[in-house]
Amino acid sequence: MTTRNLTRFWEWGRKIICVGRNYADHAKELKNAIPTEPVLFLKTSSAYLREGSPIIVPAYSNNLHHEVEFGVVIGKAGTAIPQESAMDHVAGYVLCLDMTARDIQDECKSKGLPWTLAKAFNTSCPVSEFIPKDKIPDPGNINLWLKVNDQMRQNGNTSQMIFSIPYLINYISDFISLEEGDLILTGTPKGVSRVQEHDEIEAGIEGIISMSFKVERS
Amino acid sequence: MTTRNLTRFWEWGRKIICVGRNYADHAKELKNAIPTEPVLFLKTSSAYLREGSPIIVPAYSNNLHHEVEFGVVIGKAGTAIPQESAMDHVAGYVLCLDMTARDIQDECKSKGLPWTLAKAFNTSCPVSEFIPKDKIPDPGNINLWLKVNDQMRQNGNTSQMIFSIPYLINYISDFISLEEGDLILTGTPKGVSRVQEHDEIEAGIEGIISMSFKVERS
Ligand SMILES: [Mg+2]
Ligand SMILES: [Mg+2]
Ligand SMILES: [Mg+2]
Repeated sequence: MTTRNLTRFWEWGRKIICVGRNYADHAKELKNAIPTEPVLFLKTSSAYLREGSPIIVPAYSNNLHHEVEFGVVIGKAGTAIPQESAMDHVAGYVLCLDMTARDIQDECKSKGLPWTLAKAFNTSCPVSEFIPKDKIPDPGNINLWLKVNDQMRQNGNTSQMIFSIPYLINYISDFISLEEGDLILTGTPKGVSRVQEHDEIEAGIEGIISMSFKVERS
Repeated sequence: MTTRNLTRFWEWGRKIICVGRNYADHAKELKNAIPTEPVLFLKTSSAYLREGSPIIVPAYSNNLHHEVEFGVVIGKAGTAIPQESAMDHVAGYVLCLDMTARDIQDECKSKGLPWTLAKAFNTSCPVSEFIPKDKIPDPGNINLWLKVNDQMRQNGNTSQMIFSIPYLINYISDFISLEEGDLILTGTPKGVSRVQEHDEIEAGIEGIISMSFKVERS
């Protein structure tokens, strides 16, 4: 596997681990408690989507939400990685959307069911170009934004995260070993809202990158 | 990627999709309703475990359960695969354990949280050797068994599954595309119970394969 290209991690990376409720203002807007430990859920690799292809509203949902998130791409495998050396395992970053069928998620939560249908469907993880680590010297202080049809909906800073990137890498790798090509989605700031067929989502990391996706129905 | 060897799918396969409550007698023993559609959850590739290495009880659990399951290995990619041609996408089978931190799962269910900690930890997916498709002409009628320290705990037949393998492949691939090397765990019959440090789990598909794993604490 010596030919794997980290800048195209979505073609071969095996894990997408997502953190929920990692910004206090977003936890509050969904009427969730502020977590005392990270809330983790999973997407699968078929959720990856690249610019040029549309986000598809799943047939079973009538309330698809956008969540703009800062993504961390793992470059070096590890288990029980200490916080102190966690950043040595990071190869770079990526801007992500954690597309969420909010109606289905609410139903799963109330029934005690797993979130798979709400979070892991095809096209639920649009990603930007890979951003090498040295382009973002301080990942704990970057501005993320998201617009729908040119209207600003989300605008936050990673300094508002409850659990930092090193904390998350340590917490996750204690029970899920990390591998090269794995992706961690670090949570979304407030402002999540519904998107519908024909909407255009544009999102960015201020001064670094932007991307846009059309929304279609299946 | 032409060198990928399906008989070692656990080394490179990207998805593990699991079906919960697919045997009525098991749904009942956990006091769950009989599902009207499949309950799906995910493990990650770091959950894979092969004979010779121990199952590790996660540090945060005091009630690790065994669940013996019939696994389906995908050999041909597809989206929205019709039931009629679903079996053309199957390369073979594998005997699996869906190791479950039942105490954590109960907590997640009551709090409406995802099942990640309960289901996706390292060593939570022990698998047997790969079984080529032609070795099991009728996957809808095979006997699965599991013993702990030589005592029979689970003994069921895949004919008791609520949702058949073709049904599951169609249902899943409608919203999660399947790829070569993906694994589907099809649920467990009744008899799940706790295992502890030093226990030995032995499991088999009658007349086809068996495997055994020691349990250790982290
Ligand atoms: Mg999110
Ligand atoms: Mg269908
Ligand atoms: Mg199971």
